[in-house]
Amino acid sequence: MEMETVATHSEPRTGPRLTSRSMNPEGTVVNVGGVPIGGKEIVVMAGPCAVESLEQLSVTARIVRDHGGAVLRGGAFKPRTSPYSFQGLGEEGLKLLGQVKGETGLPVVSEVMDTREVENVAKYADILQIGSRNMQNFPLLKEAGDSRVPVLLKRGMMATIEEYLFAAEYILSRGNPSVILCERGIRTFESSTRFTLDLNAIPILKHETHLPVIVDPSHGTGHRWLVPSMARAALAAGADGLLMEVHYCPEDALCDGTQALYPEDFGKLMEELRKIAAAVGRSIYVPA
Amino acid sequence: MEMETVATHSEPRTGPRLTSRSMNPEGTVVNVGGVPIGGKEIVVMAGPCAVESLEQLSVTARIVRDHGGAVLRGGAFKPRTSPYSFQGLGEEGLKLLGQVKGETGLPVVSEVMDTREVENVAKYADILQIGSRNMQNFPLLKEAGDSRVPVLLKRGMMATIEEYLFAAEYILSRGNPSVILCERGIRTFESSTRFTLDLNAIPILKHETHLPVIVDPSHGTGHRWLVPSMARAALAAGADGLLMEVHYCPEDALCDGTQALYPEDFGKLMEELRKIAAAVGRSIYVPA
Amino acid sequence: MEMETVATHSEPRTGPRLTSRSMNPEGTVVNVGGVPIGGKEIVVMAGPCAVESLEQLSVTARIVRDHGGAVLRGGAFKPRTSPYSFQGLGEEGLKLLGQVKGETGLPVVSEVMDTREVENVAKYADILQIGSRNMQNFPLLKEAGDSRVPVLLKRGMMATIEEYLFAAEYILSRGNPSVILCERGIRTFESSTRFTLDLNAIPILKHETHLPVIVDPSHGTGHRWLVPSMARAALAAGADGLLMEVHYCPEDALCDGTQALYPEDFGKLMEELRKIAAAVGRSIYVPA
Amino acid sequence: MEMETVATHSEPRTGPRLTSRSMNPEGTVVNVGGVPIGGKEIVVMAGPCAVESLEQLSVTARIVRDHGGAVLRGGAFKPRTSPYSFQGLGEEGLKLLGQVKGETGLPVVSEVMDTREVENVAKYADILQIGSRNMQNFPLLKEAGDSRVPVLLKRGMMATIEEYLFAAEYILSRGNPSVILCERGIRTFESSTRFTLDLNAIPILKHETHLPVIVDPSHGTGHRWLVPSMARAALAAGADGLLMEVHYCPEDALCDGTQALYPEDFGKLMEELRKIAAAVGRSIYVPA
Repeated sequence: MEMETVATHSEPRTGPRLTSRSMNPEGTVVNVGGVPIGGKEIVVMAGPCAVESLEQLSVTARIVRDHGGAVLRGGAFKPRTSPYSFQGLGEEGLKLLGQVKGETGLPVVSEVMDTREVENVAKYADILQIGSRNMQNFPLLKEAGDSRVPVLLKRGMMATIEEYLFAAEYILSRGNPSVILCERGIRTFESSTRFTLDLNAIPILKHETHLPVIVDPSHGTGHRWLVPSMARAALAAGADGLLMEVHYCPEDALCDGTQALYPEDFGKLMEELRKIAAAVGRSIYVPA
Repeated sequence: MEMETVATHSEPRTGPRLTSRSMNPEGTVVNVGGVPIGGKEIVVMAGPCAVESLEQLSVTARIVRDHGGAVLRGGAFKPRTSPYSFQGLGEEGLKLLGQVKGETGLPVVSEVMDTREVENVAKYADILQIGSRNMQNFPLLKEAGDSRVPVLLKRGMMATIEEYLFAAEYILSRGNPSVILCERGIRTFESSTRFTLDLNAIPILKHETHLPVIVDPSHGTGHRWLVPSMARAALAAGADGLLMEVHYCPEDALCDGTQALYPEDFGKLMEELRKIAAAVGRSIYVPA
Repeated sequence: MEMETVATHSEPRTGPRLTSRSMNPEGTVVNVGGVPIGGKEIVVMAGPCAVESLEQLSVTARIVRDHGGAVLRGGAFKPRTSPYSFQGLGEEGLKLLGQVKGETGLPVVSEVMDTREVENVAKYADILQIGSRNMQNFPLLKEAGDSRVPVLLKRGMMATIEEYLFAAEYILSRGNPSVILCERGIRTFESSTRFTLDLNAIPILKHETHLPVIVDPSHGTGHRWLVPSMARAALAAGADGLLMEVHYCPEDALCDGTQALYPEDFGKLMEELRKIAAAVGRSIYVPA
Repeated sequence: MEMETVATHSEPRTGPRLTSRSMNPEGTVVNVGGVPIGGKEIVVMAGPCAVESLEQLSVTARIVRDHGGAVLRGGAFKPRTSPYSFQGLGEEGLKLLGQVKGETGLPVVSEVMDTREVENVAKYADILQIGSRNMQNFPLLKEAGDSRVPVLLKRGMMATIEEYLFAAEYILSRGNPSVILCERGIRTFESSTRFTLDLNAIPILKHETHLPVIVDPSHGTGHRWLVPSMARAALAAGADGLLMEVHYCPEDALCDGTQALYPEDFGKLMEELRKIAAAVGRSIYVPA
């Protein structure tokens, strides 16, 4: 029963951790519905912060796909500071993600906040996202580790690199090797951005671990006008991918509208990213 | 259509928040098994970081009670940075807490980390503790809000006062009015302490909300030799109580031994605290 | 050759640093015009942020003295974020400090920002204050170390305890043993206070060094309503004194008026502080 | 006399600040001995942390020049945490900078820490550097503002963007329009780097002000192996230049050797930077 399980996992490990670069020096490539994350090609994941309606998701997904995005993001369960803010569409949102995935062929990443929802979200999403506020929600990490679905684990806004790698270790140690790391901004004294996107984390993580590392410049800065600069910088620093918010009509977004890119800005940015990728000897992944 | 689904919890509230001081200007007193928290008397909660054995818990509980502690703390489920560290005794630990509560008459506070365990922990504990890393674990807040057991909600190590009050609002808005706030150290650049215990939070919280405010100087500093100074300071600043780690043999502790007080130091500190309490016109609560 | 030039000050010291507690285990008492700072008695320094006029300084000084303050504070040279803010009265302000010192018998502490002004400020002030922004202004530290006037060295808002002690070491290593340390708030992510007053620094500094340690709750919080709580807490945590802003008419202050105490609040606070001092076995210093 | 001067500068300014982008929408180009900083071409400044000897400076300067560096850096006055660390060669170091400038034709940037040394450093250096710890050393800012030499003003490790721009305003308001801004890392909770290089500051500063913005990835990270990634990222984010540490033999460096690039790594990095510059429609400045 439970105690046995705990006992197994609390034995001190000898040798390197499962997340150590030395466990897989060439780097792990996580396969998500045919999209390889962590290889030579850079993967762009984009979409709205929250799933709001079929029209919103469907139109935005086509914009993402047509400009070269390879994975669709969209939250059905939303962690919100206030209980009185929009909390996401829940189950209904998952179904819309499933429907739009069918329409566009884009694999889907969506957040799971509750251990009891892991199985359900995994029915619709190709990647389970664990958000910044849950980076040290250990029961959730264990549950995600027990599933066999790739996990996008966001860095806690207050987490050191070492704590972050230990959080990933929770997932790997349960038998799930498919973890994608994502820098999304840390909390500092600076108040002109919502968070301080910490691009230093990219080369450090690539040095310490074999797991893929992507960057979320939308949450990391909180302002859409900062996204293009920081997205370019992330690729130049060695990121394996980007997670960005795009909305067909940011003014109407129910959540975080100020950080979502307009469709035309997303297209322009993808052009710039292709040039940066080439400058570092890589390319942007294009779905077949 | 979909917006209705979430309408219940996402209606913008008009008027002050449920946590606002103005909702109960004299201040809320949370009754825990006969112990009033938030009144004129100051309540000391103490005990080991983790429940380790019947002997450890029982001996330590008597030390706590004999020196004037009014509530016993002890973790059965432990949030640990590494998956290879001791994770707590789980169910077995809860049973030991129940047994020692029976022996000593002390009400018990214990942490719950998983929505699926709320009901179970509530069977044994008089206060459900939600830890720093789970302050924005919204499903857990909702579940605790749906229970009718008092909740000790620790401040997130990265949480602003405003975010902290919104987290408490999640619990109150589900119908559970018995929330105790607890400052336990925030993360800063300073590295000589494990966290920076932020005593400024005491007068600010007392000003903003009617909820009781206590302080955990053990986790807040990470060093037992700093606990007495900061415990005295917390009372002088207006705290309604303290949560401290005491262990009958800190050297043998399976978790956080460097921050646990020795029994004799705890006794000496209680003497000092009685003097500070008197200096601010209060007294330390003594169980009948 | 060149290395000789700097040899004098860059020789690696063998043995403990001059600031180490082990160099004077009983603790250093700095004598300021007859007022002993760092002994069993607690010293209260108070006055306006900036010297503004003879009337303002004179009236405020009498309030300070009549309620038991032992040292008068007042800035003639003010470090201001904007070049367009009031920069202090300069030389004229120093003269007013000298005049009011004569009238009231209170020794004076005033800030020096420029190496070229050290000698001049030392003509009027009994304590040279080096502010938070200059804690690592090394030429200024050296110049203050070459003077024979006591120095009140404020902790940098971004300085670790270790860096702070090294800054004091600069002064001691030039032959000036009379340094008073002062915690005044550090910069963190929390935005409900101007800075986060770090009271943990008190027991840590008292443990690490023999120098007196005082606290500035006015700058440390930025709000007058928080000053009483934090002043009481500072004494309970072991501070040797306080530095507080009092203004005879805070609404008219040219600088930091929101953090200055009203005269009546200062009187009330002094009463509270006497009780806390007694509770920790000390008393507030009363000028003969 | 002095008060008049102060009065002039403390008048509240009407209209935009001198540093505002709106004062010079196309952006200011600072000319340093023929090298344009802030134009379409990106300028690389490099050299040792501290001037140590003629051989060290001369050999390193040739390496810098031969690989395409346009400005030579080297400190004669060094701000050091400990009074017992190497403090720089002082005047002797300035003379060596003057000599090597003559040999190589490279303009020179060197730090000034003391108001009394501004004139002297300006005799040898083409750019006066004001370091992070002196960003709010207001007398030094005023003195630099009274000189007519370009100033490289580093961001304080604890300074918000707004405070940083006000510090630059001090210089401009004294009549010196030639200020170069430099992000060099801020202090956060993260301890795997010495500071957290904040690349978000680049697009924010370029948006807020017309002044050139460069980045120092050497001090910003504290580790040479992180410098290439962060240098590339800085250019991708829109920086106008870089300030980097190169040493002909980092193992022997008297100061900050772990962050200095080896000569061969500097050469390799310059190649990478040319590609990134091209990808953002710019090029690396090549001295005629």
